[in-house]
Amino acid sequence: MKALLVIADGMADRPLKELGWKTPLEAADKPSMDHLATVGVCGIIDPIAPGIPPGSDTATLALLGYDALKVYSGRGAFEALGWGLEVAEGDVCFRCNFATVDKSLTVLDRRAGRIADADASKLAESLRRVELSTKDVEFFFTNTVQHRATLVLRGSKLSPAVSDSDPETDGMKVRKIRPLDNSLEARLTAEILNELARKFHEVLEAHPVNKERVARGQPPANFILFRGAGTLPKIKPLSELYGVKAACIAVTSLIRGVCKAAGMQLLNVESATGTVQTDYMAKAKAAVQALETNDFVMLHVKAPDVASHDGNAKQKVEVIEKVDKMLAYILNKADLGETYVALTADHTTSCATKNHEGDPVPLAIMGPYVRGDDVNEFSERACAKGGLGRLRGKHLMPILMNFLGKVKKFGA
Amino acid sequence: MKALLVIADGMADRPLKELGWKTPLEAADKPSMDHLATVGVCGIIDPIAPGIPPGSDTATLALLGYDALKVYSGRGAFEALGWGLEVAEGDVCFRCNFATVDKSLTVLDRRAGRIADADASKLAESLRRVELSTKDVEFFFTNTVQHRATLVLRGSKLSPAVSDSDPETDGMKVRKIRPLDNSLEARLTAEILNELARKFHEVLEAHPVNKERVARGQPPANFILFRGAGTLPKIKPLSELYGVKAACIAVTSLIRGVCKAAGMQLLNVESATGTVQTDYMAKAKAAVQALETNDFVMLHVKAPDVASHDGNAKQKVEVIEKVDKMLAYILNKADLGETYVALTADHTTSCATKNHEGDPVPLAIMGPYVRGDDVNEFSERACAKGGLGRLRGKHLMPILMNFLGKVKKFGA
Repeated sequence: MKALLVIADGMADRPLKELGWKTPLEAADKPSMDHLATVGVCGIIDPIAPGIPPGSDTATLALLGYDALKVYSGRGAFEALGWGLEVAEGDVCFRCNFATVDKSLTVLDRRAGRIADADASKLAESLRRVELSTKDVEFFFTNTVQHRATLVLRGSKLSPAVSDSDPETDGMKVRKIRPLDNSLEARLTAEILNELARKFHEVLEAHPVNKERVARGQPPANFILFRGAGTLPKIKPLSELYGVKAACIAVTSLIRGVCKAAGMQLLNVESATGTVQTDYMAKAKAAVQALETNDFVMLHVKAPDVASHDGNAKQKVEVIEKVDKMLAYILNKADLGETYVALTADHTTSCATKNHEGDPVPLAIMGPYVRGDDVNEFSERACAKGGLGRLRGKHLMPILMNFLGKVKKFGA
Repeated sequence: MKALLVIADGMADRPLKELGWKTPLEAADKPSMDHLATVGVCGIIDPIAPGIPPGSDTATLALLGYDALKVYSGRGAFEALGWGLEVAEGDVCFRCNFATVDKSLTVLDRRAGRIADADASKLAESLRRVELSTKDVEFFFTNTVQHRATLVLRGSKLSPAVSDSDPETDGMKVRKIRPLDNSLEARLTAEILNELARKFHEVLEAHPVNKERVARGQPPANFILFRGAGTLPKIKPLSELYGVKAACIAVTSLIRGVCKAAGMQLLNVESATGTVQTDYMAKAKAAVQALETNDFVMLHVKAPDVASHDGNAKQKVEVIEKVDKMLAYILNKADLGETYVALTADHTTSCATKNHEGDPVPLAIMGPYVRGDDVNEFSERACAKGGLGRLRGKHLMPILMNFLGKVKKFGA
């Protein structure tokens, strides 16, 4: 027996006026999802807890069976892991942005005009030569895609309890990084980050690439913003917890990082992009293929969340219909006599608020031995009437792994 | 966006023989509650946990979003806060009764003939002049309504781990107060209380007011019973947790105290009495008015619980119908495009057992973006089929605050 978990990022929503007070799932034509709900057993999930808007990292951790409220240790390490970087225990990691600031350190563009990879790579190379005043700490700075980058700090006296320098919106001043507790480690880490920010700024201001950018009329990438300090969470890999070989198909680095931390193999699908135009069919094929050599496969699709954050209900409906076709391929090609297929979302993202919300998400599980129910539609409201009732995110994985006979009996 | 939480104290019940095995909610004509259930989303709540009969204080704490099992620290401080007294961290507070005892300290009347306020005030004035043998502890004794009073002990070496002197029923002897753990603090606190009880008794026995009472054929208020030792719970105010301005409309001092501890503004409604004859419409008007200047308003109605403790099912049905008219006014006058309205009970109180019971309570939430369900009746059994499923009391507040956009995302 095998299991496939399909996570459609931010697919759950609230009733929307522009859809006649239906949710995008209710408005979409999605025969495969409805089939899954019809033959399977349904329910609703609070990824973290009722009313708590989850991040995609905490929600994915929970859907992989971990107690996110206990083990979550910040975004940074997931970002770094997701980009294929090595992260060791004790390392403090950050998500970074190449940004454009003026002389007073007011942020003019948090993405430095979505700087091209070639420019960012040359700048990053120079930044790696910066020397810290302390020899006790090493740093590793890596640009990833466009303005995105990661920073890993390594040393014995570091702490993730530091604030962000990223002000989160353009037009605000860069924030000084401050320790968030009274520990020596937090103070030292904040000092190092402020030193790095200053030295990076000096290097970037003087850099020929930025002079060329200005000459071409592009905003200079003259500042590195830090945010989301994080360390590796203390979690056991799925192989150890359930004795399964597990793989994930995801583009989003944050999600890939969570899966990496869970010990899953990260599969690459060349034409998958994490955008609404992603190659849904290539992901479907990869999932079917991955099921041949793995016990557990997680297939993540970012697109519904992208449409939601844009507040584009019509596009969200279209994306859901594409996800449905992806699912149709899987249900056609996978060995359903040997496979449990679960479909859910990592969180509600409302097209009305354009934010993650704390409302529960729908869930359907089909497979040989599920106790089917009366639900015949995959939606937030229909699944609320399902046989699974209302679960927490962390409950899903034991349910799936139990169908695979992989959960140890508790007691005699 | 704003939210109104209507808590009808003890409104939930069990099926009752005298109502043809309907619950009072099922037997009542309550078009507004049913409307709320019809347009809203419904569920059932275990205020504390399944099967655990909650007190009104613990249930209200939970419905305000706190983990009552972790933070509850006794009734005493809520009583004192609810009467407008100052309570500082470390103070140990008690609910007190003026009582009538005979020479052997057997309680003849736990309420001293429901002594009038005027008599109680004169007696309390004398009691405040009593001197303790230790200078390390101060006490503040205040009569409130009729036989009710509160005692606040202040000092650096006090503990709420002491037993009650109140035997809870007439005909029993006054209990000696004992420490409930081996700490020095608990022993000292018990000694001080026993000393106070003795000195209070001496003052009251000799007091002219009691001699007059006896001459008039009234029972003398010659003893002060202590119960419900409690300290301030360590909780953050709602303003800090959710960034909301919050107010409460309640008469019951225990409930007012919980709301005060949660940092809510306590509003006064002159004609509201906490009895079944309370001015329901005045409360409704106050709630609509409070919503104009607050983000969150809690409206508490004591009456259903009073009828339940009397075992009066017929009166409970009538009270529910009055609460329904109160709700009708609110639904007519409030700006429903900008307001979430939630209706629930703090606990089940059974007219059959006349006690708080551990059965879940019904919940309905209406508002712009709720995912409505098929439920069209507000009752214990109808709401159990609702889209919210079965929640704990502490989950309600995050759900409401999330609708207001006031819950921070957990994760990235």
